[in-house]
Amino acid sequence: MLIIGERINSTRKSIGAAVKAHDTDFIRQEALSQAAAGAHFLDCNGAVVGVEAEPETLAWLVQTCQEATGLPCAIDSPNPGAMEAALAVHQGQPFINSITAEREKFARILPLIKQYRAKVVALCLDDRGIPQTLEARTQAADFLVTNLTAAGVPLDDIYLDPLVFPVSTNGEAGKQVLETIRYVRATYPGVHTTCGLSNVSYGLPVRKLLNQAFLVLCLGAGLDCVIADPTDPALMALLYAGEALLGRDEYCANYLAMARQGKLEQRQE
Amino acid sequence: MLIIGERINSTRKSIGAAVKAHDTDFIRQEALSQAAAGAHFLDCNGAVVGVEAEPETLAWLVQTCQEATGLPCAIDSPNPGAMEAALAVHQGQPFINSITAEREKFARILPLIKQYRAKVVALCLDDRGIPQTLEARTQAADFLVTNLTAAGVPLDDIYLDPLVFPVSTNGEAGKQVLETIRYVRATYPGVHTTCGLSNVSYGLPVRKLLNQAFLVLCLGAGLDCVIADPTDPALMALLYAGEALLGRDEYCANYLAMARQGKLEQRQE
Repeated sequence: MLIIGERINSTRKSIGAAVKAHDTDFIRQEALSQAAAGAHFLDCNGAVVGVEAEPETLAWLVQTCQEATGLPCAIDSPNPGAMEAALAVHQGQPFINSITAEREKFARILPLIKQYRAKVVALCLDDRGIPQTLEARTQAADFLVTNLTAAGVPLDDIYLDPLVFPVSTNGEAGKQVLETIRYVRATYPGVHTTCGLSNVSYGLPVRKLLNQAFLVLCLGAGLDCVIADPTDPALMALLYAGEALLGRDEYCANYLAMARQGKLEQRQE
Repeated sequence: MLIIGERINSTRKSIGAAVKAHDTDFIRQEALSQAAAGAHFLDCNGAVVGVEAEPETLAWLVQTCQEATGLPCAIDSPNPGAMEAALAVHQGQPFINSITAEREKFARILPLIKQYRAKVVALCLDDRGIPQTLEARTQAADFLVTNLTAAGVPLDDIYLDPLVFPVSTNGEAGKQVLETIRYVRATYPGVHTTCGLSNVSYGLPVRKLLNQAFLVLCLGAGLDCVIADPTDPALMALLYAGEALLGRDEYCANYLAMARQGKLEQRQE
């Protein structure tokens, strides 16, 4: 499971303050703690500073994270100028978060994917707006895979995101995500799936518990990349357990290594 | 999710000692704690006393559990004499744990299911021995559903158990269980599925964590009954979360009730 650490997102209060202040030490610590917890990519979102200041800020965020950890980043912005500024300073293969099947957005982001040979989070969303059904998601997925591959983007760089909505407002929301993951796996072998877990629990108590259970459900449906908080030890412990149970951890070697490191113990009673 | 509390099993050391001593208070406490934790049936296994003494012992176990809690029991014995003695004293609809597709065992247990109008755990196991493949399990499932229904057992009383083996010895063991659950759901609408979780983690550290993750994976595959330890609060919290996420808890009402009762909180950090 590829883990994109979600914490450096300026819509979160403490991160937003650090981003506005260009607090390098704070961002370094967030980057280091996620790297130590097992993140493979670090999401970087600097939107809080506004469109004008975002290019410089996002480039600073990416540089700060990479200098601290050496990890590649997922560049998370709806602002093409900021995306370009951050891509220009990024070392190694970046992740672009995100493209959609909205025609204008697709046309705007595609050249950046090609220029920087980026991996991309491809949201199952098109010009009809928020997908309310499985069909709306699979149609957007079809558009994205067809048009990204036609433009030469390798299957292995495409990470379809079904879009996660709160089960508190729609009891079918979780099932639709799981069905979309299964659809992509069956229809487009070689294409990856990803999602941001935490939307699913919006509006409900004990959100971490819901996020943990949803990660295991998504894993069972075939998810192979997640945008999540790796510093939640219970989430990571369940992930390692789930991979061992699904035969995605040969000889349970990673599970056993994590047990030896004491990383599963907080759940033992 | 129907929960069969697994704790009153005389192969466990503390229970074995209490069963040998006919320690009514100890068994009452085990029964009450499982009932309070959400069990719908209580598994009763008295095999530790040996074949001769088992009929009287199993009947005592069932009576003790039912007097304490009023819950129905899952009568867990390979010994037909003990099974009959326990069924004879049981109040309400019992669960028989278990029948298999082994021809002799099937013929011996079927009359008891009919006589007592029991629900039954039907293990996907036949005379060829331990099922090593998905096909072996689905063939046993086919035999069981065909022959139980032909004998007049209602679909709603059949709980197919794929048989759970440790992932420590076979990396495919977990996946085969999940695939069997999906097979039964797709092939025999109305038939239930169940399994004993804890075998999956045998031989690995932090077993409760694996059992918890496996319950969520099984839930995602469609499991609707589990033989488990309801007194593990993390297991139950993940179960409630999983049901809310899968749209199996309308308006998340049960999840919210459990949150209000503080039953999810041990997982909040």
